[in-house]
Amino acid sequence: MRIDTLSTFPDMYDSVMGTSMMRLARERGVIEFHAYDLRDWTHDRHRSTDDYPYGGGSGLVMKCDPVYEAMESILGLSSGSLPESKADVPSARVIFLSPHGRTFDDRYALELSKCDRLVFVCGHYEGMDERVYALADDMISLGDYVLTSGELASMVVIDAVVRKLDGVLGAEDGAADESFATGLLEYPQYTRPANFRGMEVPEVLLSGHHAKIEKWRRQTSLRRTLELRPDLIEEYIESDRISESDLIFLKKSLDGKA
Amino acid sequence: MRIDTLSTFPDMYDSVMGTSMMRLARERGVIEFHAYDLRDWTHDRHRSTDDYPYGGGSGLVMKCDPVYEAMESILGLSSGSLPESKADVPSARVIFLSPHGRTFDDRYALELSKCDRLVFVCGHYEGMDERVYALADDMISLGDYVLTSGELASMVVIDAVVRKLDGVLGAEDGAADESFATGLLEYPQYTRPANFRGMEVPEVLLSGHHAKIEKWRRQTSLRRTLELRPDLIEEYIESDRISESDLIFLKKSLDGKA
Repeated sequence: MRIDTLSTFPDMYDSVMGTSMMRLARERGVIEFHAYDLRDWTHDRHRSTDDYPYGGGSGLVMKCDPVYEAMESILGLSSGSLPESKADVPSARVIFLSPHGRTFDDRYALELSKCDRLVFVCGHYEGMDERVYALADDMISLGDYVLTSGELASMVVIDAVVRKLDGVLGAEDGAADESFATGLLEYPQYTRPANFRGMEVPEVLLSGHHAKIEKWRRQTSLRRTLELRPDLIEEYIESDRISESDLIFLKKSLDGKA
Repeated sequence: MRIDTLSTFPDMYDSVMGTSMMRLARERGVIEFHAYDLRDWTHDRHRSTDDYPYGGGSGLVMKCDPVYEAMESILGLSSGSLPESKADVPSARVIFLSPHGRTFDDRYALELSKCDRLVFVCGHYEGMDERVYALADDMISLGDYVLTSGELASMVVIDAVVRKLDGVLGAEDGAADESFATGLLEYPQYTRPANFRGMEVPEVLLSGHHAKIEKWRRQTSLRRTLELRPDLIEEYIESDRISESDLIFLKKSLDGKA
């Protein structure tokens, strides 16, 4: 997968994209990453990427021109051809991060992980001229909060997507059991020592009895999701992943008997 | 505000915490930031911070011991005194990022922005031994997706919080009009040129008629929120921020007349 970002602080990606999982994904050739500097497509002395908003008000607004020129260059399209020529590069998915966007979740990350190429356009401080969104395939919202750094927002999406690519996480770090992948919150985990400052590991986990451990994990996962995220339980009940014994346990829990 | 992070890849913070708004906030002394390396509190040759889970299964689990020892050191508590001594440092808010947590939003960011000190404990790949959560004041979930890097997750919270601190964003980059602060999605913004590749700025914004501009912005903001985030509109209607004219406009929109 090729991942491009376009922003005014491309260096902001260095540490995250050069460490741990991301470093590995790049070294292994699973992803190719480029952080482009929007200022390279400005033509004035101050390399301005923003300007005052029409109609007045505080804050500056990111200009159309540099974004369009940069995207033409990054996507290999002829100058002045966007937004029409966007259709010529169907494999490149152009993503903006915005509170107006579709809420990001695990399913969305999975969908993006199947793309050949992701191109992120990131603002900083200011809003963007509405007309840049003519280039968008996706408008993503991370949640109901505002980030100053569009770069940081894009890194969150990149992390959630790249970890799903083949050859990035080993079996050791497997993603199969984790929250959301199963539709439930994860069961509690413990490692040595069995007694830490008076807090003990649940006995069943020390029993070596695999069927019992499996059942305990399933049930704590169900109970925890029921308690903390009843909305996820509703979806889960409607999915084909739920078993007869899950249903019986949930019913008991709701009746206060489990 | 003092912000501490504890994780196994402390360098991962360098670029984000050293650029743009974060750099400014640090240079101006609004925040003091420390990224601690969890491995500094390990005692074995491999500096292990994780171990195999009790009960089996794939993935490694972050151990209690280094986290407790590190937190005692960071919070200036005597060795072996946690979790009881946690009560001795009421001003330090200890935060874990987890899918089990309370969903992060603008209001939560505002709440955290009033704290003296935030301490983030960040995992990487693996889950954490359930007993580390005895140290938690907050469990935060960024959304229904999984990130490999706890560092990255903590940076999102830090960004959303720090931008709310006095002296960080200037009036130019003011946060007053933006999405969520008003309870509504933001109105569309435009800057020069008035006609960009055939796409024109709405005439009202070029009119210089401030009352009309104000009304247009209000109404596009309401209409957009109604269309994209009806859940926010419900909250807004119940709030004391809504005006009589907002209500009339919303009613018209719902009736398809606006």
